[in-house]
Amino acid sequence: MPSYTAPIRDFQFVLHDVLQIEKLSNQLGFTDASRDVIDAVLEEGGKFMSEVTAPLNQVGDQEGCKWDNGVVTTPTGFKEAYQQYCEAGWGGLTAEEKYGGQGLPHVIGIAMAEIQSSANMAFAMYPGLTHGAYEALLRHGSEEQKDMYLPNMASGKWTGTMNLTEPHCGTDLGLMRTKAEPQADGSYLITGTKIFISAGEHDLAENIIHLVLAKIPGGPEGIKGVSLFVVPKFLVNPDGSLGARNGVSCGSIEHKMGIHGNSTCVLNYDAAKGWLVGQKHKGMQAMFVMMNAARLGVGVQGLSQAEVAYQNALTYANDRLQGRAITGTKAPDKPADPIIVHPDIRRMLLTIKAFVEGSRALALWTGIELDVAAKHPEPEKRQEAEDLVAFLTPMVKAYMTDYGYQCATMAQQVYGGHGYIAEWGMEQFVRDARIAMIYEGANGIQALDLVGRKLPTGIGRLARRFFHPVSVFIEEKMMDPAIGKDYVMPLAKAFARLQTATALISERGLKNPDEAGAASWDYLNMFALVALGFMWARMAEVAKQKLAEGVGDKDFYETKLVTARFFMERMLPDTAAQLAKIQAGSESTMMLKAANF
Amino acid sequence: MPSYTAPIRDFQFVLHDVLQIEKLSNQLGFTDASRDVIDAVLEEGGKFMSEVTAPLNQVGDQEGCKWDNGVVTTPTGFKEAYQQYCEAGWGGLTAEEKYGGQGLPHVIGIAMAEIQSSANMAFAMYPGLTHGAYEALLRHGSEEQKDMYLPNMASGKWTGTMNLTEPHCGTDLGLMRTKAEPQADGSYLITGTKIFISAGEHDLAENIIHLVLAKIPGGPEGIKGVSLFVVPKFLVNPDGSLGARNGVSCGSIEHKMGIHGNSTCVLNYDAAKGWLVGQKHKGMQAMFVMMNAARLGVGVQGLSQAEVAYQNALTYANDRLQGRAITGTKAPDKPADPIIVHPDIRRMLLTIKAFVEGSRALALWTGIELDVAAKHPEPEKRQEAEDLVAFLTPMVKAYMTDYGYQCATMAQQVYGGHGYIAEWGMEQFVRDARIAMIYEGANGIQALDLVGRKLPTGIGRLARRFFHPVSVFIEEKMMDPAIGKDYVMPLAKAFARLQTATALISERGLKNPDEAGAASWDYLNMFALVALGFMWARMAEVAKQKLAEGVGDKDFYETKLVTARFFMERMLPDTAAQLAKIQAGSESTMMLKAANF
Repeated sequence: MPSYTAPIRDFQFVLHDVLQIEKLSNQLGFTDASRDVIDAVLEEGGKFMSEVTAPLNQVGDQEGCKWDNGVVTTPTGFKEAYQQYCEAGWGGLTAEEKYGGQGLPHVIGIAMAEIQSSANMAFAMYPGLTHGAYEALLRHGSEEQKDMYLPNMASGKWTGTMNLTEPHCGTDLGLMRTKAEPQADGSYLITGTKIFISAGEHDLAENIIHLVLAKIPGGPEGIKGVSLFVVPKFLVNPDGSLGARNGVSCGSIEHKMGIHGNSTCVLNYDAAKGWLVGQKHKGMQAMFVMMNAARLGVGVQGLSQAEVAYQNALTYANDRLQGRAITGTKAPDKPADPIIVHPDIRRMLLTIKAFVEGSRALALWTGIELDVAAKHPEPEKRQEAEDLVAFLTPMVKAYMTDYGYQCATMAQQVYGGHGYIAEWGMEQFVRDARIAMIYEGANGIQALDLVGRKLPTGIGRLARRFFHPVSVFIEEKMMDPAIGKDYVMPLAKAFARLQTATALISERGLKNPDEAGAASWDYLNMFALVALGFMWARMAEVAKQKLAEGVGDKDFYETKLVTARFFMERMLPDTAAQLAKIQAGSESTMMLKAANF
Repeated sequence: MPSYTAPIRDFQFVLHDVLQIEKLSNQLGFTDASRDVIDAVLEEGGKFMSEVTAPLNQVGDQEGCKWDNGVVTTPTGFKEAYQQYCEAGWGGLTAEEKYGGQGLPHVIGIAMAEIQSSANMAFAMYPGLTHGAYEALLRHGSEEQKDMYLPNMASGKWTGTMNLTEPHCGTDLGLMRTKAEPQADGSYLITGTKIFISAGEHDLAENIIHLVLAKIPGGPEGIKGVSLFVVPKFLVNPDGSLGARNGVSCGSIEHKMGIHGNSTCVLNYDAAKGWLVGQKHKGMQAMFVMMNAARLGVGVQGLSQAEVAYQNALTYANDRLQGRAITGTKAPDKPADPIIVHPDIRRMLLTIKAFVEGSRALALWTGIELDVAAKHPEPEKRQEAEDLVAFLTPMVKAYMTDYGYQCATMAQQVYGGHGYIAEWGMEQFVRDARIAMIYEGANGIQALDLVGRKLPTGIGRLARRFFHPVSVFIEEKMMDPAIGKDYVMPLAKAFARLQTATALISERGLKNPDEAGAASWDYLNMFALVALGFMWARMAEVAKQKLAEGVGDKDFYETKLVTARFFMERMLPDTAAQLAKIQAGSESTMMLKAANF
């Protein structure tokens, strides 16, 4: 059975040494988020997930959720673990103190989301979805709605869901058919079918608060006529007790490739009672505000599966004896050398390591900017942070899930034949990781969002929030004797390619949107490599400083430098190919008639 | 439910127009393999697999094989389909006529292997393994053994297996523990445990002929003391009837990520009666001779899953209405445009298409060279072909399975959320494709075989068999007004990179084998892209000729040209990044201590 240990040391390095979160916490008014508190939360959280939810990951996969006449039963142990999870207060880590939460910064929520997903992604989705619904109500709900729902959602007593997709519409929500008929009492009756609703029905909590997109008849056509509603599974009495069962039922659950422990539901709304959240016909706007956080969370899922797969592949690579090192025997006392001596095993492990640690830094940086956007005292700083987050988000979501899946596949490969056998657990990480490339906006949509929406916004205003700090860093550090040659130069080269591609896409895309569309995937990946390169250069800088100061764990910092170099030498060069592909233009992509494919 | 239609038109194009197989058939003495016969075989085979085995692909996955006290039952319908398969003679297509086969060239076997695996990979493995065992006995068995086993294996009445792996040894077979004790009657008693034995036990055939690697006590240490044995499940009486059950039993079957319809067995040999095949202690040599064919077959499995996934993704992309084209509405009469209008959907489809068609050409070219190696009247030509096959094989195996898996994943992505749902069948293609990267030598081992064994052989003698025809082609066609600029120039650029990398690896690898090892994966992929580029340039040449002649299906040839261009512009540039990575050297890969990962 695979195991998992939260990478606490790495979180500390990124949060404290690289991103210097403590300084920011004070600025943003998170006075309780001291270094000690953050460390304690991560350590305790890591311990809890390793001991309580990780051991349920395989049983969750093997048993899956069971549907019987509308009732969904989660796998053995999930209910008890969820109880413990709520009692320990893990659900309300970043929730407002007024609703019973602990009021910690979002970035700590991001770190804990990684830990939770590494331990048990299917399980983590139940509180994860609750968190998303909590945020939507927090930002768009009325005071009455917030008071009614948020305390029980923060505690985990009730869970939440997001209802967008219908059988004939996923990406294109303008085609939506679910109706919301206004009633005299101010409520609405919701009727329609929603599919792919994660955690849509289960036995973990006494109530489920569905947030549902639907159309009020007579409203504007398409996407502009969509509104957001809160529809509880059980109606809530004025005194907070549970009332009648609402007209929403689970028609079936999907049999899917992975995340078997999470119920993916068809929800039938049959004149279910719901209440408008926010403004009429402004449902999509309400959703979009939350999407940055949700997409960042999904990106972290990709990273999380790569991390846990890496941990196990590393153990296996050290244990498994097979063949001799090509440079001569390394373990003469053993019948064969551990496979970690082989260069190609190391290539796979280092690729995952460089991806995971670079992505972790990127996700946490983005998480901090989310906090800045929400809490900074200066509106200008808030706007800047919001711009940066908006620009980074599609890349974080798509790149981390796409490459996370590839890394999980690589970790599985380290196991040879055993990687294909369910018992070892590696193939589950691959199957679970796969969904993150699809949901919360398929990765191709993220790429289109990046080049079609984020790049042109404010004539490159969002892009500059990223480009500017990278240019400044390169300019300042290029000649730095400690990091200039090995870390900043390769970044500068890749960054120049990204700038060339950006100019090209902006120019050509104006004349022909297909030019931007056909370049979008390569552009997103190029941007991701540059962003990871920026993170790695910054991490290398800190590692060099620490080594110069002679404090702390020498091996840890030296390993950072080797991994950074591996990233620069063996991963960042992909930007050369990506630029060449973008430069080739859209013609060969677009010219074929559909009938001739 | 997904569907499958054999790509007959494309097989015809490659076999007849590009590779001109008819000319060669005559030269090699395959006088029955006329164009008409080949076409009829592929058409009938395609029809059979689409109608008989493809409809069992999903049920095979969902039911899987069942083990009960040593007895293995295949999924519903497999037994009947296998009966029909044997009756139609599909098992003996390339088997010798003297053993009841049809004596067709191996290249036709390769084509049919693709069709069979696309239709139902798990099912196709039963006759596939039989074919491998047949070949081993044919080449290394005594006349008596051949007469005893081959006719029933050619007909499919008996199936075959290959037994290599043991729990503690996969890649490193020198660690093998299975023993073969010589008996007075010339037979051996085999004792030991073999794992991961595909088709090791099942209910499709009345006997199973196991080919087993084992060590004769007192023989040389390690890999040099391994011999090959034939061990039938039921002993065969001199009159050919079945005798007593032999001492081999199936201890369990594996629960695995995919190919559920094929039984992956633990086989326990408990003083089972076996007979030496070939020479004592020369078992590995006997295996190696077959490995080229087997590895080519596994490469084709990767391609096969990409093909069937592509076919279904294409249908979905034309059917699914979602969003509007970014250049303006394309289907005003519909509520949304089919998603094939979107550039990123096209990028995915074209990437798969270019991979599949290029790989098909490469696999068939390699298949033809296998026939030349076996049958050409001139020994020199046979040697040349054998050299070329030896050089191409690790690349074909590793690249086609690795990229085939990626392409199956891309095809799944086209489906959005539906791709993750079992019912649609796309996720099965991904899971089934995954094994091909592992078995028959994990892909990293293929890369090491390429740079560590194949590249240095005869001071580059094998490599020249590939490099030479590519150089000649480039030199002759570079200035060709029809194909020079768009197809030959990009190939020449990539080929120059490959030559640079080859020289670099050869030089550095001499001093430090880790340099070759750390470069092996990028080198293999670079080589694959150049090989596919060579195939695409040749296909483009033929397409241009056909268009100039004005014969045949204009759309077909024009589509070839667009796909070729897409390959050159959007896939081949990866060679730039691969070269840069190789040039960076092995240091960052090798310097980290195992404890510091």
